[in-house]
Amino acid sequence: MRGPNRRIMSAPLVIVNAKTYESSQGDGAVTLARIMDDLDSRGARLVLAVSAFDLSAVSAAVENIEVWTQHLDPIGFGSNTGRLHPNTAVERGAQGTLINHAENKVDISHVGELLPMVEGKLEVCACAADLQEAEALAALSPMYIAIEPPELIGGVISVTTADPAIVSDTVGLVKSVNPAVRVLCGAGVNTGEDVATALKLGADGVLLASAVTKASDPAAVLANLLSQL
Amino acid sequence: MRGPNRRIMSAPLVIVNAKTYESSQGDGAVTLARIMDDLDSRGARLVLAVSAFDLSAVSAAVENIEVWTQHLDPIGFGSNTGRLHPNTAVERGAQGTLINHAENKVDISHVGELLPMVEGKLEVCACAADLQEAEALAALSPMYIAIEPPELIGGVISVTTADPAIVSDTVGLVKSVNPAVRVLCGAGVNTGEDVATALKLGADGVLLASAVTKASDPAAVLANLLSQL
Amino acid sequence: MRGPNRRIMSAPLVIVNAKTYESSQGDGAVTLARIMDDLDSRGARLVLAVSAFDLSAVSAAVENIEVWTQHLDPIGFGSNTGRLHPNTAVERGAQGTLINHAENKVDISHVGELLPMVEGKLEVCACAADLQEAEALAALSPMYIAIEPPELIGGVISVTTADPAIVSDTVGLVKSVNPAVRVLCGAGVNTGEDVATALKLGADGVLLASAVTKASDPAAVLANLLSQL
Amino acid sequence: MRGPNRRIMSAPLVIVNAKTYESSQGDGAVTLARIMDDLDSRGARLVLAVSAFDLSAVSAAVENIEVWTQHLDPIGFGSNTGRLHPNTAVERGAQGTLINHAENKVDISHVGELLPMVEGKLEVCACAADLQEAEALAALSPMYIAIEPPELIGGVISVTTADPAIVSDTVGLVKSVNPAVRVLCGAGVNTGEDVATALKLGADGVLLASAVTKASDPAAVLANLLSQL
Repeated sequence: MRGPNRRIMSAPLVIVNAKTYESSQGDGAVTLARIMDDLDSRGARLVLAVSAFDLSAVSAAVENIEVWTQHLDPIGFGSNTGRLHPNTAVERGAQGTLINHAENKVDISHVGELLPMVEGKLEVCACAADLQEAEALAALSPMYIAIEPPELIGGVISVTTADPAIVSDTVGLVKSVNPAVRVLCGAGVNTGEDVATALKLGADGVLLASAVTKASDPAAVLANLLSQL
Repeated sequence: MRGPNRRIMSAPLVIVNAKTYESSQGDGAVTLARIMDDLDSRGARLVLAVSAFDLSAVSAAVENIEVWTQHLDPIGFGSNTGRLHPNTAVERGAQGTLINHAENKVDISHVGELLPMVEGKLEVCACAADLQEAEALAALSPMYIAIEPPELIGGVISVTTADPAIVSDTVGLVKSVNPAVRVLCGAGVNTGEDVATALKLGADGVLLASAVTKASDPAAVLANLLSQL
Repeated sequence: MRGPNRRIMSAPLVIVNAKTYESSQGDGAVTLARIMDDLDSRGARLVLAVSAFDLSAVSAAVENIEVWTQHLDPIGFGSNTGRLHPNTAVERGAQGTLINHAENKVDISHVGELLPMVEGKLEVCACAADLQEAEALAALSPMYIAIEPPELIGGVISVTTADPAIVSDTVGLVKSVNPAVRVLCGAGVNTGEDVATALKLGADGVLLASAVTKASDPAAVLANLLSQL
Repeated sequence: MRGPNRRIMSAPLVIVNAKTYESSQGDGAVTLARIMDDLDSRGARLVLAVSAFDLSAVSAAVENIEVWTQHLDPIGFGSNTGRLHPNTAVERGAQGTLINHAENKVDISHVGELLPMVEGKLEVCACAADLQEAEALAALSPMYIAIEPPELIGGVISVTTADPAIVSDTVGLVKSVNPAVRVLCGAGVNTGEDVATALKLGADGVLLASAVTKASDPAAVLANLLSQL
């Protein structure tokens, strides 16, 4: 079984966010997880972030990749109907979580309270929709911040074809607030060359979604993404 | 396997809301589900409403009871990171859901949009924290509304010792808006006599939480609750 | 001074929602209010629903029309930083309020708690983005519900050119839940003929916004809207 | 008239948050504002943060103090029914705003988007319910952060009787993230000695509420608070 001790923290991190795409929920989540599990990760840590409903089944289906959840609530045990408790996530196989995704924004104290609750149990990637959010989140010291350089959103321009300063400046801004925070590039990454460029410019990994989940051949897309590591 | 066709809809409904109590999440949820599964339900439909993380494992562990989720989002497939999609719940074994619990309030259109999305796939129990909420929810025609008669909240008075009009008037109010809605008594129920009284006064079942989840012997508490059916 | 006793409740109600349009906030709100104040209302009750910031100044500037607020919170006096207290609105001249506008959705109990708090002090128009919301809101018995018949949203079709059943069925649905609720037509109304048609088909008035607030000559648009009363 | 140019930025800032206390809303807000306006501020900048409904009337009633609003929404002009637009606040006399008060929490991007929108027009005091929130907010560079040192909440211990490190460490933590941010002490301040101690330990001012708004003699309480400047 994989676990925190098996992880080489300096390895590049490649997170696939399954969101609630039809192709990557329910049985589709298990299928995608198995595809990822069978890949040669070429030294990268592969993560699939799944629906809370799918966490248990997906965790049981894989050996080599990590399974994360897409959201958690910083609650204690008790009267919290419908909330997502961190310990239950751990018990069902989660090794990390996304938080504050642009599709699921939370207030500052939500992140601030969650981090100490999950320390040593779950890794956290806080998502930032813009540079200001990234700065604020960096002050809270999550392990990872996924940031979308504004110029790269929409996918027309990739990190490889963009002005290198766009990515390195973004990484630099976050590191200037908190050098310990690792930065994931959350936009402009579609190919192995893009992953390699993002790492070269200072990112510690990438956060992907539809490029993988909506691909007709996810294995091929993922193999390409990992090809230049 | 249990399923909608196995349900006798006129049977009293007994829902245990696991919330995020330590004793009824993770392995504890499975243990509680098995205790419920082994009970003589005496003709009642037994439901355990669990954390989204536990749904899959709990569903796989039981044969006789229904497993519900505690919350759903009325979303389509797509970019909804961290949201709880109804179809994923169905695929992971849910047969129903709570919605609008006092600990997880939603706006009106959340309930209004969810109901047609899950019709024929999931039963819905909309929770009402007071009589006004119950009236508004009744207009949306969920199968069940769980209502807490204000005089019974806090648990000092049970439905058995209370003025019978408190319960029958509450049921009557909801039925006056929509006679097809079934009403669950969500307060003042701790014993089998209370369940029997609630049904006699017009309720179609009960919604329970800590009385079961925090009991040192949940099997005994549940057996007592079902004893007078 | 105008006041509840001056209002003829059976008069058609014409509410202009100033929203936060540049043209209808700050001094613009006062200017628009004065234009409305100087109109021959032809027996209609004219309402301008303004920003909380503008309520006091607009109320002081008019004699004949009513000034409403666009949102209120069902809070008591005390520690509610940044919330909008009903009594403060009354003290600053409000005679009514919108609530649950599609741009400012609230949960059911928000409306349910607000109505008794403001009874006899403020009229309430609860907004419904669709028919289901209208049904649920009707059960709470606000004085008015503003409903947008789905076929009329977008403004291409007006109530006058539409199948009359679209409007009368919408009105009928709300009245079937609660006959005492008055219905405002919130879409498909741009001209005096549209207002007349809406009233003929069972509406008690109209809720307008950009047709007035973005008009180059609001006085002319309003005069036309009132022309067939 | 007072204005940004009249302010001596290095002067201590004393903000009274009127919240929605009965005594400090409506006419009560004007009365309290006049009391503050007539005080010898002893070089401090006095601010009364009022309900949106009261902003216009309170601003018109004072000459020497600043009037702030308690909340703003980072919206543009347009379809934002019930929201609080910064420009309307400015037009109605606001010189600043609170944001992210514990009673009115917002997500990170709410603060992040508001700050550039109001730059040069309104001062912003972002409130932090704990040290983590303060760190995150500091990264967004508001002019002021009001922080409640956890040990001082509840009011039993004042900044004067507390271990001085509690206050100076809190101030130091915020300044370590962003030295340009000024820190207001939001707890443990009831007397002039407390204000003096807070300033001595590195705070640039204080944020008060019930100590003033619920006082039987607010003028005396305020005079005492300002007495050691």
